Amino acid sequence: MPPSTLADWILGRRLASEEQEQQHIGPFAGIPVLGLDALGSAAYGPEATLTLLLPLGALALRYVAPILAVIIAVLLVVYFSYRQTITAYPGGGGSYTVASKNLGRMPGLLAGAALAIDYILNVAVGIAAGVGALVSAVPSLLPHTLVLCLVILVLLTVVNLRGVRESGIVFMLPTYAFVATLGIVMVIGIGKAVASGGHPTPVIAPPAISAATEALGAWIVVRAFANGCTAMTGVEAVSNGVPLFRKPTIKNAQITLTAIIAILALLLAGIAYLARAYGIAATDPGKDGYQSILSMLTTAVMGRGVFYYVTMGSVVSVLALSANTSFADFPRLCRVLAEDRFLPDSFAMRGRRLVYTQGIVLLALLSGLLLVAFGGITDKLIPLFAIGALLAFTMSQAGMVAHWRRVGGAEARHSLPINLAGAIATGVTVVVVAVSKFGEGAWITVIVLPLLVFMFTRINAHYRDVAQQIASNDPLPADGAKAPIVVVAAQSWNRLTQRGLQFAQRLSPEVYAVQVKSETAKMRELTDEWATLAENPAKAAGHAAPKLVVLSSTYRQFFKPLVDFVLQKRDEEPDRDIVVVIPDLVVTRWYQALLHNHRGAILRALLRVRGGPRVVVVNTPFHLHG
Amino acid sequence: MPPSTLADWILGRRLASEEQEQQHIGPFAGIPVLGLDALGSAAYGPEATLTLLLPLGALALRYVAPILAVIIAVLLVVYFSYRQTITAYPGGGGSYTVASKNLGRMPGLLAGAALAIDYILNVAVGIAAGVGALVSAVPSLLPHTLVLCLVILVLLTVVNLRGVRESGIVFMLPTYAFVATLGIVMVIGIGKAVASGGHPTPVIAPPAISAATEALGAWIVVRAFANGCTAMTGVEAVSNGVPLFRKPTIKNAQITLTAIIAILALLLAGIAYLARAYGIAATDPGKDGYQSILSMLTTAVMGRGVFYYVTMGSVVSVLALSANTSFADFPRLCRVLAEDRFLPDSFAMRGRRLVYTQGIVLLALLSGLLLVAFGGITDKLIPLFAIGALLAFTMSQAGMVAHWRRVGGAEARHSLPINLAGAIATGVTVVVVAVSKFGEGAWITVIVLPLLVFMFTRINAHYRDVAQQIASNDPLPADGAKAPIVVVAAQSWNRLTQRGLQFAQRLSPEVYAVQVKSETAKMRELTDEWATLAENPAKAAGHAAPKLVVLSSTYRQFFKPLVDFVLQKRDEEPDRDIVVVIPDLVVTRWYQALLHNHRGAILRALLRVRGGPRVVVVNTPFHLHG
Repeated sequence: MPPSTLADWILGRRLASEEQEQQHIGPFAGIPVLGLDALGSAAYGPEATLTLLLPLGALALRYVAPILAVIIAVLLVVYFSYRQTITAYPGGGGSYTVASKNLGRMPGLLAGAALAIDYILNVAVGIAAGVGALVSAVPSLLPHTLVLCLVILVLLTVVNLRGVRESGIVFMLPTYAFVATLGIVMVIGIGKAVASGGHPTPVIAPPAISAATEALGAWIVVRAFANGCTAMTGVEAVSNGVPLFRKPTIKNAQITLTAIIAILALLLAGIAYLARAYGIAATDPGKDGYQSILSMLTTAVMGRGVFYYVTMGSVVSVLALSANTSFADFPRLCRVLAEDRFLPDSFAMRGRRLVYTQGIVLLALLSGLLLVAFGGITDKLIPLFAIGALLAFTMSQAGMVAHWRRVGGAEARHSLPINLAGAIATGVTVVVVAVSKFGEGAWITVIVLPLLVFMFTRINAHYRDVAQQIASNDPLPADGAKAPIVVVAAQSWNRLTQRGLQFAQRLSPEVYAVQVKSETAKMRELTDEWATLAENPAKAAGHAAPKLVVLSSTYRQFFKPLVDFVLQKRDEEPDRDIVVVIPDLVVTRWYQALLHNHRGAILRALLRVRGGPRVVVVNTPFHLHG
Repeated sequence: MPPSTLADWILGRRLASEEQEQQHIGPFAGIPVLGLDALGSAAYGPEATLTLLLPLGALALRYVAPILAVIIAVLLVVYFSYRQTITAYPGGGGSYTVASKNLGRMPGLLAGAALAIDYILNVAVGIAAGVGALVSAVPSLLPHTLVLCLVILVLLTVVNLRGVRESGIVFMLPTYAFVATLGIVMVIGIGKAVASGGHPTPVIAPPAISAATEALGAWIVVRAFANGCTAMTGVEAVSNGVPLFRKPTIKNAQITLTAIIAILALLLAGIAYLARAYGIAATDPGKDGYQSILSMLTTAVMGRGVFYYVTMGSVVSVLALSANTSFADFPRLCRVLAEDRFLPDSFAMRGRRLVYTQGIVLLALLSGLLLVAFGGITDKLIPLFAIGALLAFTMSQAGMVAHWRRVGGAEARHSLPINLAGAIATGVTVVVVAVSKFGEGAWITVIVLPLLVFMFTRINAHYRDVAQQIASNDPLPADGAKAPIVVVAAQSWNRLTQRGLQFAQRLSPEVYAVQVKSETAKMRELTDEWATLAENPAKAAGHAAPKLVVLSSTYRQFFKPLVDFVLQKRDEEPDRDIVVVIPDLVVTRWYQALLHNHRGAILRALLRVRGGPRVVVVNTPFHLHG
């Protein structure tokens, strides 16, 4: 067990690899860890639809239910598809895995890139939406929007670095408060509506619906549908995170997915019904008197008591924490990409708490950059991020279709149609969303996606190239090389130089001690004393005498003459190694390093880049004592 | 000759050490290089005096001439003193040198610290004053004050990095324009005043003098004198920079000093006379209708034609460029301190253009920080910086007194009184300034000075400690050590590992190849194949067989097990070196480095700090080809 440090305190003690099993979660923790994004959708999906229908006035109420019904239908198709995926890929069936295994490398990378974009945007948008809601409730916090966003981001990052179990526990309360309070609103609201024959009296009447400014048209309905599809983001999280669950893994994952989708579908249906029953349309988000649909609905059903504020508080929390789904899944996506060598290895290494630390940190950095760039107001990014999720869904469903075609058999016969329906439904949706939102920013996704895919392929090409160059299964080849030439940087005669020379003598009989004479006044040239200081003692000890080389430097450069000398020796003796011994003064306190030149480090860096494969650098340390 | 690069283009081609002689300057370039600070004083010294006398109303005019007369008298004493210093210290007689050679180490460091503070403040204050004057002439530039300051700072830095000659040429025009235009104003003004019997008619009448708000008192006169003493800053520059001059060095330096002091004294006297004759008192700098003394004076004598604007333009330039004196002298001060080991060595090294690059860069950084911290408005710093200069003067003069007492003889008999008078005059002045400006910020200097001196002594103590620890004039000691233990970081079997093992075999028969087993799934353990891969081939080639060590890592740490293994071996064998061979993959493009872990570099850093003197690190490079 490592000692208790600041890191232990912030991140928790280091977990042994064997403790992985205890980190696994069940459905009860799985819903907060993987479901926050999907559940949060209930807060903005219907809102997004109704806002787009705003110009239709009271007519909007006639169309919201059918539109949400279509969305719920697509959602259910997606649900059944992902249930299949969980069974078929218990090791984690993210869109990248399913698409690349069944459709090929490029479709897989496209799905991975789409998902990565979706996850990053989700963090920025989720946190900004939560803080936005908080700030509109407490306007005095408005100037601190960005700081609040970043504080939440840091908290989310730390909680996730502490491990999966930990985040499940932390996020349980807001998640279940959200489900419980909205559930109560639905039950009481629907009860009242049914009791009053479909025309309940609101406790507090919602704002009057503004007059229609536009006629009904097919395009506005299509765009309202596309807007509402943001309600579907986050649904892929469970199938991607299957390995997080404790045994029976597949069953637990399926229970979790079922619970999330059921809650989401019920909330969406409830909102659609109640909005119609209570006559609640969207208010203009840009204007005074704006109120969210959920706020108006809760007010109409329950009034503005304590319950209202508890409900709104849980909505705000879930919005802000919906970012957490990305924190659970993005690092796993990075790990899979890293294992297939499309990202650096280190993304596949589990950190102190058995989570993929580097993916978590990268996600925090990228979404933090987005938050800073947009000053914590990321509304404009919303159109961008539904596309990523829907595109990934489509690739995943299409992959499953290919999977069943390959597998065949009885299971395939009833599963394939479900996945095909899912692929078609989400495929059509992604086209609708991309076209209807192209001008609002979807074009950015269209540019970034291929760039990301290109980056993945270049990284992979580099790794394959490296692997090929360094690969060898041969036994250790015989080392036919002659003794190396050793060059010791020996600017003055002191214990460091002596240590370097002693080490050099062991390596080879051919040792050069090099002085660079740049500022003549300041260097004590060793030529006259060399016989006494080095040659004679070396011979007496049975070694060959080291040679002294004094290099002059017209332009007062230190490194150039020395590096040139090494390269010259290297080129003169094409079958020998050149070992450069750099005596290295190690100080006791970091600030003392400021008082010494870093010639050793610079020389090492220069020789590393320019020296080629035969120049080996040796550091002989000399440690000062306090 | 190095190839032409961006650095060549910005900083000029690298100069050979032999080209030093051509870099030397004569008096004509010496005045701009070393005199800008002193000459610029004419623009603010009288202004500072008159501003303090503002509450006296018209009575101020009666006192400005006597006060400036005293200042000129002190200035002349200082002049004669510094002439002596130049003769006595042709190698550069800065206050630090003179004080430390004659009064001892601590007085020397105190003078050095005072001068360093003065130089840094001078850069910030000079540039800010120039930009302030420019901005009050062109108010639309006001929002860009800081940017303008920093642009001028960068230009000054680059010009000075290009070398001394270059800055002489660049600054000649504004310097001589300043001298010529103000000279013309003086001559015509005094001519008119004499012709009209002391009461000339102004071309444009100066603003009416405001009514007196305070009675005359000794304290206000003393403070006016203290304020005016800022006119003396910059006078030590020439004696500090003697080695810059071409032969005959001493004579050229003395001519330059004489010219600077003569021009300054004449300008001060002229301003004092004309202010009285034309009835020009200060206007309140904080209020509307503010105008500088030089502006009112030029307007009164010459009107507001083109000549007025040329004059004011040259005043602004000289103020902004007065910072240049610091750039000429601060790096030389740092060099002398570095040669005496109170600062790092590198301050004593001449850069590409034979100037002390590192001192120039440090000055630019520190004054840049001051400008940024004060947003380019550094008025508040003015009280701080006269003290530094005057304290340095006093130490220098006192040092010269000690010098003559030691030297004795005829020269001493007539020189000692001059330096004694100088020491007393500047000593009294520094006390007056310190007391009268204590509350305005002089206390900061009182705090910073001893801190700087403390820093110098600590740095020196560290260097002396290091020198003692590493010093050795003994011949190379016989190396009685046994063959080292070699540890090769061999995470997988590839060409890098093979190269490391081959190199290791040459060093010692005792070689350990170490694998760290942290994420078990991802590592191919070599135990079973080790005989085939390494042991047998090594034996066949006549080497001892390298041993394989597989370290397990419960907490997935890579470095800890490896470093612990090295330290354990080190402690087991107290009389042997432990050589750690780290195979190092060298990529062809810098961005490829992002795709590889930096375990080699981190391991090296850890072993350097924790390994102690017997752990030697060897990097065997493996270069990828494009």
